[in-house]
Amino acid sequence: MTAMDRIIPMIDHAVLAPDATRDDVLAGCELVAEVGTASICIHPRWVTVAAEALQGSPVAVGTVAGFPLGATTSEVKAFEARQAFARGADEIDMVLAITALKSGDYAAVRDDVAAVVGAAYIADAEEPVVKVILETCYLTDEEKRIAVELAVEAGAHFVKTSTGLGPEGATVANVRLLRELAPEHVGVKAAGGIRTVEDCLAMIDAGANRLGCSSTRKIADGLETT
Amino acid sequence: MTAMDRIIPMIDHAVLAPDATRDDVLAGCELVAEVGTASICIHPRWVTVAAEALQGSPVAVGTVAGFPLGATTSEVKAFEARQAFARGADEIDMVLAITALKSGDYAAVRDDVAAVVGAAYIADAEEPVVKVILETCYLTDEEKRIAVELAVEAGAHFVKTSTGLGPEGATVANVRLLRELAPEHVGVKAAGGIRTVEDCLAMIDAGANRLGCSSTRKIADGLETT
Repeated sequence: MTAMDRIIPMIDHAVLAPDATRDDVLAGCELVAEVGTASICIHPRWVTVAAEALQGSPVAVGTVAGFPLGATTSEVKAFEARQAFARGADEIDMVLAITALKSGDYAAVRDDVAAVVGAAYIADAEEPVVKVILETCYLTDEEKRIAVELAVEAGAHFVKTSTGLGPEGATVANVRLLRELAPEHVGVKAAGGIRTVEDCLAMIDAGANRLGCSSTRKIADGLETT
Repeated sequence: MTAMDRIIPMIDHAVLAPDATRDDVLAGCELVAEVGTASICIHPRWVTVAAEALQGSPVAVGTVAGFPLGATTSEVKAFEARQAFARGADEIDMVLAITALKSGDYAAVRDDVAAVVGAAYIADAEEPVVKVILETCYLTDEEKRIAVELAVEAGAHFVKTSTGLGPEGATVANVRLLRELAPEHVGVKAAGGIRTVEDCLAMIDAGANRLGCSSTRKIADGLETT
């Protein structure tokens, strides 16, 4: 198994720039279909476009909910997720209710994740995947522990380090911590600042099962030449 | 009329940090009730908390929709706004569908604003105010012109420069441009990086009717001592 075979199928290719256009989304869909990432992750507005472009492809369609602050209500996140699943999304990367966690309202944090997990089933999605973005840069290690516990209790399939839009992205230390905290059946996604083959390998070594990247073309080309 | 009398009633006091807690929101409510801003602007999750804290006060409760990227669907923004109005919000600062504008899909941009304006009436809000954040840092001057035209057509009450979370905040040039572009009955809100009395006065001179600030305490104190 080559590095290419290991890395590319773990990538969620992110097209999440605030001004990403329909053409950017379509170019992203071409890229992921060509190289064979796990998924493409696009803004909710583009789910239908991506789902059509990737029809028949094994690459999953992912989108976000409550992104990137996580400070909207659980009802809004659940509505957003339900609509996305109904439009053809397979995976949702939701942002944790950071404001609620910071306020010590742990039940609200758990219910918030549960609302999105529930939305997947209400929308009758096939093998839906819900990833919970902790945005670790705002959390203490103790808060990370609590967040992982609550997300797992609520049925999350992955815990994820970062949105990629906050002041800090994925670090090896945080990926290792999340891998230690989460039970084996829950995946760990590293995202934010992962731009090279070396970055990818460091995150995988630390325990990541998925990698959020927007430099996928560069990474794929880097792999091809090594 | 003193500078204090002019500036403070034009401020929307923003408590929009990604990790703003319930206590931060309550402290903000105390501050705005004391100094008499136009409104407080808090995350959707805290609308009920702020509406209760400010019951009987003339200070309006504001929140955001599709914040800060504007890249979710119109249905999600409308749902978010409807829930906020139903919970006691008076004003919504929504983010323009930047991705749609950048894709040349102008009808989608207009419908997106109209969906939120409509939500205010569905929720039976009294004198609802909808502000449309252009996030000017991503737009050309021609795109700003188109955005203002579409927002006005869709019934927006204000156009607003920035989220405060993007790479650039309000500039005098952009406030002046929006004031020229918008009809007189539509207000202009300057937001992002407005931290001092001097900043406030510069924005008002450029034509701003509202100011988004998180340094309201500092500004109020600055005014008191000058």
